[in-house]
Amino acid sequence: MRILGIDPGLTCTGFGVVDSEGAALHYVASGTIRTSPGDGVLLPHRLKILFDGIGEVVQRYQPQIAVCEIVFVNVNPQATLMLGQARGCCLTALVANGLEVREYTALQLKKAVTGHGKAAKEQVQEMVKRLLQLPGLPGKDAADALGLCITHAQVGRSMDAINKVASLQARTTAAYKGGRSY
Amino acid sequence: MRILGIDPGLTCTGFGVVDSEGAALHYVASGTIRTSPGDGVLLPHRLKILFDGIGEVVQRYQPQIAVCEIVFVNVNPQATLMLGQARGCCLTALVANGLEVREYTALQLKKAVTGHGKAAKEQVQEMVKRLLQLPGLPGKDAADALGLCITHAQVGRSMDAINKVASLQARTTAAYKGGRSY
Repeated sequence: MRILGIDPGLTCTGFGVVDSEGAALHYVASGTIRTSPGDGVLLPHRLKILFDGIGEVVQRYQPQIAVCEIVFVNVNPQATLMLGQARGCCLTALVANGLEVREYTALQLKKAVTGHGKAAKEQVQEMVKRLLQLPGLPGKDAADALGLCITHAQVGRSMDAINKVASLQARTTAAYKGGRSY
Repeated sequence: MRILGIDPGLTCTGFGVVDSEGAALHYVASGTIRTSPGDGVLLPHRLKILFDGIGEVVQRYQPQIAVCEIVFVNVNPQATLMLGQARGCCLTALVANGLEVREYTALQLKKAVTGHGKAAKEQVQEMVKRLLQLPGLPGKDAADALGLCITHAQVGRSMDAINKVASLQARTTAAYKGGRSY
């Protein structure tokens, strides 16, 4: 399964693409989409750059599912509003390109990638590098995006395991009930 | 010029379409796009409904420009984040459909439509009804969206007047300079 991870931001949105096959993870691509707050560049124009950038990534790498970080309210309400608009644009770009989107918090990402929820950004970068066998450290935004892919791959494996147990239990119960009815 | 006004919201986004010709305003259409927060309906799915809804309005009425309300931070930071995401989705839908977007605050809207910035929602509805000669009161969200169209039409007329004066001044200056050089 090919997973696209998105770490949303107005100035810098990180993306990462990872193939997950069983327990194996393969790095495909990562990078950032930047929109400059330069003179006279208004918000709608910046969101267009973000929308087109995500569209290009989806067209090029053809992911089967997308994962987007759940953002939290900031100390500065105006910054919260800006981040919200950027995230709204990212989610819209993903669904407009026909992708299903799963959402994870930074805490879930850190736990899945480093084993504890209070890991520093640098620890996430280091673990993403190791898990995906990268030659160097990924940038912080790209590392978060790749970390989201890893999180989703792990959750997928856990869900498969749970479903297997549930299916085994169901068959056992059915067989037991079957045994009693005769 | 055909103007599309958007009053963004996650549960209810108002839209209005108005034709502006000189000083005349003609109502074309208005309504709301609703996304239900029902069981298991996640944010990406709701944003998809909003994106598709705005796309349908643009395709049906073929506006030449879009106007979107500038939203402000709410008392509740989580609500601010949600509104931000909905507004990001609306702006993205407009620019993805090739429209230029102008932005006005609620204060500018109220001043343009009612003459004072502290007008109540009901006054905006009443004035929108009068200015567009509607048979009945429009809904609050649709009234705001139509009010944005009226605001932009007024600003457009003011800008035209300013440009005419500037062009007249430039021609006068050129003629005067021309007179001196011979």
